[in-house]
Amino acid sequence: MIIVMSHQATEPQVNAVVERVKEIGLKFELSRGEDRTLVGVIGSNAYAYREAFSHLPGIKEIIPITKPFKLASREFRSADTVVDVGGVKVGGTQDVVVMAGPCSVEGEEMLIETARHVAARGARMLRGGAFKPRTSPYSFQGLAGLKMLAMAREETGLRVVSEVVTPADVELCARYVDVLQVGTRNMQNYALLQEVGRVGKPVLLKRGMSSTVEEWLLAAEYVLSQGNRNVMLCERGIRTFEVATRFTLDLNVIPLARELTHLPMVVDPSQATGKWSLVRPMALAAVAAGAHGLLVEVHPHPDEALSDGAQSLDFAAFDRMMDDLHRMTSVLTQVAAK
Amino acid sequence: MIIVMSHQATEPQVNAVVERVKEIGLKFELSRGEDRTLVGVIGSNAYAYREAFSHLPGIKEIIPITKPFKLASREFRSADTVVDVGGVKVGGTQDVVVMAGPCSVEGEEMLIETARHVAARGARMLRGGAFKPRTSPYSFQGLAGLKMLAMAREETGLRVVSEVVTPADVELCARYVDVLQVGTRNMQNYALLQEVGRVGKPVLLKRGMSSTVEEWLLAAEYVLSQGNRNVMLCERGIRTFEVATRFTLDLNVIPLARELTHLPMVVDPSQATGKWSLVRPMALAAVAAGAHGLLVEVHPHPDEALSDGAQSLDFAAFDRMMDDLHRMTSVLTQVAAK
Amino acid sequence: MIIVMSHQATEPQVNAVVERVKEIGLKFELSRGEDRTLVGVIGSNAYAYREAFSHLPGIKEIIPITKPFKLASREFRSADTVVDVGGVKVGGTQDVVVMAGPCSVEGEEMLIETARHVAARGARMLRGGAFKPRTSPYSFQGLAGLKMLAMAREETGLRVVSEVVTPADVELCARYVDVLQVGTRNMQNYALLQEVGRVGKPVLLKRGMSSTVEEWLLAAEYVLSQGNRNVMLCERGIRTFEVATRFTLDLNVIPLARELTHLPMVVDPSQATGKWSLVRPMALAAVAAGAHGLLVEVHPHPDEALSDGAQSLDFAAFDRMMDDLHRMTSVLTQVAAK
Amino acid sequence: MIIVMSHQATEPQVNAVVERVKEIGLKFELSRGEDRTLVGVIGSNAYAYREAFSHLPGIKEIIPITKPFKLASREFRSADTVVDVGGVKVGGTQDVVVMAGPCSVEGEEMLIETARHVAARGARMLRGGAFKPRTSPYSFQGLAGLKMLAMAREETGLRVVSEVVTPADVELCARYVDVLQVGTRNMQNYALLQEVGRVGKPVLLKRGMSSTVEEWLLAAEYVLSQGNRNVMLCERGIRTFEVATRFTLDLNVIPLARELTHLPMVVDPSQATGKWSLVRPMALAAVAAGAHGLLVEVHPHPDEALSDGAQSLDFAAFDRMMDDLHRMTSVLTQVAAK
Repeated sequence: MIIVMSHQATEPQVNAVVERVKEIGLKFELSRGEDRTLVGVIGSNAYAYREAFSHLPGIKEIIPITKPFKLASREFRSADTVVDVGGVKVGGTQDVVVMAGPCSVEGEEMLIETARHVAARGARMLRGGAFKPRTSPYSFQGLAGLKMLAMAREETGLRVVSEVVTPADVELCARYVDVLQVGTRNMQNYALLQEVGRVGKPVLLKRGMSSTVEEWLLAAEYVLSQGNRNVMLCERGIRTFEVATRFTLDLNVIPLARELTHLPMVVDPSQATGKWSLVRPMALAAVAAGAHGLLVEVHPHPDEALSDGAQSLDFAAFDRMMDDLHRMTSVLTQVAAK
Repeated sequence: MIIVMSHQATEPQVNAVVERVKEIGLKFELSRGEDRTLVGVIGSNAYAYREAFSHLPGIKEIIPITKPFKLASREFRSADTVVDVGGVKVGGTQDVVVMAGPCSVEGEEMLIETARHVAARGARMLRGGAFKPRTSPYSFQGLAGLKMLAMAREETGLRVVSEVVTPADVELCARYVDVLQVGTRNMQNYALLQEVGRVGKPVLLKRGMSSTVEEWLLAAEYVLSQGNRNVMLCERGIRTFEVATRFTLDLNVIPLARELTHLPMVVDPSQATGKWSLVRPMALAAVAAGAHGLLVEVHPHPDEALSDGAQSLDFAAFDRMMDDLHRMTSVLTQVAAK
Repeated sequence: MIIVMSHQATEPQVNAVVERVKEIGLKFELSRGEDRTLVGVIGSNAYAYREAFSHLPGIKEIIPITKPFKLASREFRSADTVVDVGGVKVGGTQDVVVMAGPCSVEGEEMLIETARHVAARGARMLRGGAFKPRTSPYSFQGLAGLKMLAMAREETGLRVVSEVVTPADVELCARYVDVLQVGTRNMQNYALLQEVGRVGKPVLLKRGMSSTVEEWLLAAEYVLSQGNRNVMLCERGIRTFEVATRFTLDLNVIPLARELTHLPMVVDPSQATGKWSLVRPMALAAVAAGAHGLLVEVHPHPDEALSDGAQSLDFAAFDRMMDDLHRMTSVLTQVAAK
Repeated sequence: MIIVMSHQATEPQVNAVVERVKEIGLKFELSRGEDRTLVGVIGSNAYAYREAFSHLPGIKEIIPITKPFKLASREFRSADTVVDVGGVKVGGTQDVVVMAGPCSVEGEEMLIETARHVAARGARMLRGGAFKPRTSPYSFQGLAGLKMLAMAREETGLRVVSEVVTPADVELCARYVDVLQVGTRNMQNYALLQEVGRVGKPVLLKRGMSSTVEEWLLAAEYVLSQGNRNVMLCERGIRTFEVATRFTLDLNVIPLARELTHLPMVVDPSQATGKWSLVRPMALAAVAAGAHGLLVEVHPHPDEALSDGAQSLDFAAFDRMMDDLHRMTSVLTQVAAK
């Protein structure tokens, strides 16, 4: 942390800052420039004490130096993390993993039909909402959905990823699914992050729709610090002034986050665009930008879907995406590797 | 809901849309313009069926007509709701209610000292975080904080408002506090909204930092629909490109929301600005814009605060804000009333 | 400027940075912390050289220290600037100045009628668009509008503020108006800023709808550095995800900018909200937040206006705003002064 | 345009709306729903009259139906426009065109060196700033830069694209360059749009950093309506809350705009990210999303660049991007075509 003194700051004001640093037990280094004096406050957690200075006179600004995440950082671990989901590997130089399925589990038949189709075309995981954000956590529907997902896994060998929305459901959910998804509205639900951290299953952590990359990595840090190192990050669009698409898919964040963290990056083009005709080009773009996985909504009959039909691919559109993806990833080793 | 056909839409395409409307059991009205055909789909919940049309060919756009909130709307209830918090009334033409106190309850002494001071200067409620968002919900600290808040109420007669962060804590919390606050990160935590709806205590619902006014009113609708009509809305700043302040306090939303809803509006200038020197002017601005209440962070010694000291008023700054506020509200009846 | 080295940075990498600093001719100070090394680069224009370091290995981040505006800053000039517009004074502890009038000058009669009305109710300046952004700069309409504004000044004694949209028009415009307005779409039109700087008339510089407060002050700096010190800043709403209002009026920026700069602050609630019913409460809020002036659209018959009628006050609504404003500013000396 | 009446609207209020429609000379269609009455106002320019209704009582909302751009729309022209820049074709199913070069023309030698290098590796156009936004339009530097660009064209056969910042420079600029670039800060500078429309050269129209796709297409419409049909659109990043990158590259807009318009889409990953290490992945992503061209900053020695060195590729990084791009576009016919 660097404390920048105002250029009118007096000697006693500078001294008061230095005294405060000493009281806290941190080290410091004074740097007197032409224009102003800087007080470098040294120690890896120095910035946590910034409040202790916020009301002292003569200070112009307080600037953090070290980023506040550690376990999630490339500096901490330089090799890519590869998350192993029952043998399906996500991250590093592994093949791009496609996670596909309906927005919500509407029934056994549609789920199995979808699972079989996407598995045959190369998907490795099945996505599907059992507990919708608005569903009562104790309702039968939630449990029934989980059981159907587990059954579809038996049938197809796909791993299952599904969202958990409240801490009380985490253990139940973890018994049925392979990856616990934390949704965009819960990225800073610390009670939930703690539970998914404790339970130890792989986690798919969606970016908050208005979260900076730093806040996102801090949320990951929260899970990692509970001892669960199997965290995948998922970009799903951020909220901007542009309303022609549902959200703005921020693909900048893929190569950027790959510089900052060793964790695998997944992209959800369905939620981001809200429009099925944009899903295929954005899925390809995500992989070209360096994504390790894709989360895509597929429905046998999108125009009959109970939710989010407008953004779901039908089987033909999914097949076309997979074909293009295979063609692109055949030249990808050279493309995606850093 | 209005379905706008592309101007190249064929007659069979228009008919297919009309058939779908009939299948669903809705009424419709065709309007053939110079350029294109519109299909008006009639029924208060028509827009809920928009997915059923999203994959039909020849459709250019689907436009909602009725706003999807009802209980929260001015159309449903034209008179202002006045929420009664143990005799302290918020809303309508009641006096502006100031809710003040520390960001977190750090100890008994500082809490009582703060409560006594703000009560003496005209505050009617005491705010204070017992469970911080990052705190384990089952920790002793949470319960201890609640007990201290209840004690401060005994001492001062202030009503108590405190945040609840997870559904499992709602009942415990409701035993100690007068108003359950739902924070910005939980505005769309439906499990939590349901619990605070069920338990029936007055609720202070903060706006999500990236939520539209419509989403905010829908979250309120969720609480109202559980039978709890005592909802106060609290604007606390939205996330924008401007990073010179912590958030951008959106005061437009105060007169706007007062047109759309009958619920009382509260403003939190401390969280929004993140800078204590901006709190007083923004508090005055909020009241001038029509706010019914203010939520303000006050700390006996902000530079020693464990959290958010930079945005807390000390006692002298609080006093100055209250003086200005009294002066302004003495001419306010004419000012704030619509 | 502070160059933060990565914690894996080698000694030769640190030395390379230091050598580069010496080559450029700047001074430096090394600070070796527990975790990492910092290189403080000293000199008021140091940050301008940051590019020279951007490709050197081992650097984690480059952080500016001094803000890049100078003439506009409070540090440069601590007393408030009061801009004198032919005797009407804006800034400091002067009375709040109301600038009112139609969005565009639609005709002589409506302009004179509006000017007389607003003058009688206490406005001190007349606003009105002669050159609309889309108008050809050489069209008769522009000149005719300017002449009508000048005539309305003769009739009423109001000072005239009007927008200039292209450098070629600045001199012509300056002959007819008292304040040259630079619009939100031109805040970074440097050719235009240069011309209004050179010509020396008072300038009303609107904030770009997506400009940070720092960029806004830099645009002001550009005008000031041409020798024109009569710059007023005007907040007019920023673009955010919220589309329920036309823009989001950022009132935080008023007290914030008053800390950073000595220039007067004006607020335009008409452009910001896009809705006449929000203009009065937001005008009051702006003044409570510390604005020195208001820019308000008024039209004798808003429902017949050729442009922006939805956000124009009619005479009755303007009168009500002025009444409330007088009531509020009667207690304002104590309220608004810092 | 559809006028949505409030559900309390009275019969006389509905009639008043209908009368106003008749006065204006538009047609209408009444639709009386369960909840409320709608007045469909028919005519391709109906929305232009919305102000005429904004003050009538009983109206809840006014909703536009037809998008206000026409010449730029897919509905107007279904086949892709291919812009011919002296034989280099951009748009439709043509090869992706790379436009590369330094941010600013710093000298003859560096410009020729860069031009030769990028031409040898497959670029078809040379980019370079002659007039920087802050440069005086009449300065020698501007003209000298233009002459150097023209000379580099002679040497290499590359077409030249360069920004023009003020209407007065358009004719001069058009004599030296092949494509007139309109920058992000000038997207709504109508005087400039008019001049580049009149002069008839191909135009590269960058998206305003806070412009919606609709506003962008309206700016294109302005150029097209002057009779100049050779408009290319360039996405260059939008301003969002995320500050870890300079801007947020909005690739959603590529497939979306290709649905809305027939004009070619170009992407500038250098300006968008502000960080050279993100340029290659984002360039690949842009092409995967369906871009017809790329605008990339290249400098022989980025760490000595006078401006924007941090986002410029050096020759080795450019070569690597071109190799990856060739590999990707070899499978692209199937990938990018809709």
